[in-house]
Amino acid sequence: MRGLFITFEGPDGGGKSTQIRLLNEWLTARGHEVLVTREPGGCKVAEEIRGLILDIRHTSMTPVTEALLYAAARAQHVEEVIAPALEAGKTVICDRFLDSSLAYQGAGRKLGFTTVADMNRHATHGLVPEITFLCRINTELSRLRVWGRSVPDRLESEKTDFQDRVLRGFDELARRYPERIKEIDAGRDIQVVYDEIIGHVRALLERREHGA
Amino acid sequence: MRGLFITFEGPDGGGKSTQIRLLNEWLTARGHEVLVTREPGGCKVAEEIRGLILDIRHTSMTPVTEALLYAAARAQHVEEVIAPALEAGKTVICDRFLDSSLAYQGAGRKLGFTTVADMNRHATHGLVPEITFLCRINTELSRLRVWGRSVPDRLESEKTDFQDRVLRGFDELARRYPERIKEIDAGRDIQVVYDEIIGHVRALLERREHGA
Repeated sequence: MRGLFITFEGPDGGGKSTQIRLLNEWLTARGHEVLVTREPGGCKVAEEIRGLILDIRHTSMTPVTEALLYAAARAQHVEEVIAPALEAGKTVICDRFLDSSLAYQGAGRKLGFTTVADMNRHATHGLVPEITFLCRINTELSRLRVWGRSVPDRLESEKTDFQDRVLRGFDELARRYPERIKEIDAGRDIQVVYDEIIGHVRALLERREHGA
Repeated sequence: MRGLFITFEGPDGGGKSTQIRLLNEWLTARGHEVLVTREPGGCKVAEEIRGLILDIRHTSMTPVTEALLYAAARAQHVEEVIAPALEAGKTVICDRFLDSSLAYQGAGRKLGFTTVADMNRHATHGLVPEITFLCRINTELSRLRVWGRSVPDRLESEKTDFQDRVLRGFDELARRYPERIKEIDAGRDIQVVYDEIIGHVRALLERREHGA
């Protein structure tokens, strides 16, 4: 049986890493072979592309170039790491996947979902996660965590506009794909968030066992 | 008036560089402002992507990743260099453009023209050269020049198969776009090739002047 593909999405500072670690432990304790990976990166070629995106992020890189580089890294990651693991029956947990490109480059950089989805059509080989946890925290709380103060200057305001578009992008994706994307209020206690995520995964595993 | 966009295509060893230099001199002598550039590369971000493609070319890079990286480099090159120059009325001569991706990744790496064209749709911003010189030399001659001997070993045979697919890819493009792509037998004397290229450019400039 092909393995389960689980992704975590949402802005930085939403506690994704902690929940990924806990879910990995829960699945492993139940006998699942789990591969935890992340985007952008997850293999040598993709890490090099990631390094390139980060290296020159603040110079003149255009949004189209940025989006195509993320797609290139994803193509390598899927073909070299994710697809073989799923074929071998492993459960793959990935920190960020296509939804991040749609939210950050599609909404944040204003390229639009369609353009970014087009660029990624061949990169994902049609692979879609069985379940996606969109870890959200209150926007104002996120801003305060990121910026450390409440009155942003001009440059920070631009960044805040960008972040707002990204968050609205994730909102829109959750509206479009309610069956796949589970919105998680990650501003609550870690154990409460964990219980909710485990509940979803347990239900998914039961549906798969019963061939639903 | 928007500038003229001229590209040179074809396998390595076909004498593109020499003809580009001569065409640049001819146009400049007639008062044209000319920008000569090349792919992959042509600006800082694109050169860094080029370095990445070349650095890891012989490891595990997948054809889809390679094609998306070339598209990413092209997006930056078009937006930052080629489009602004054409807008400013300059003539742009580019050593390789989209046709190379179609021939090398589409035909050579077997991704197909449609897939590679899809990936590049947003990268080129719809920009198509006014004229493309496909500089061809006899295949056997090309092999001898590249390999320096006539009996290839197993690895060289693989490379030769790849090269043959690339050449057939260029052939197919020339059949599809006979108005734009001019096939040039570049195995002849430099002056003869030059005269043929200048003849095409002169005719193109006259048609533009008369608004055809």
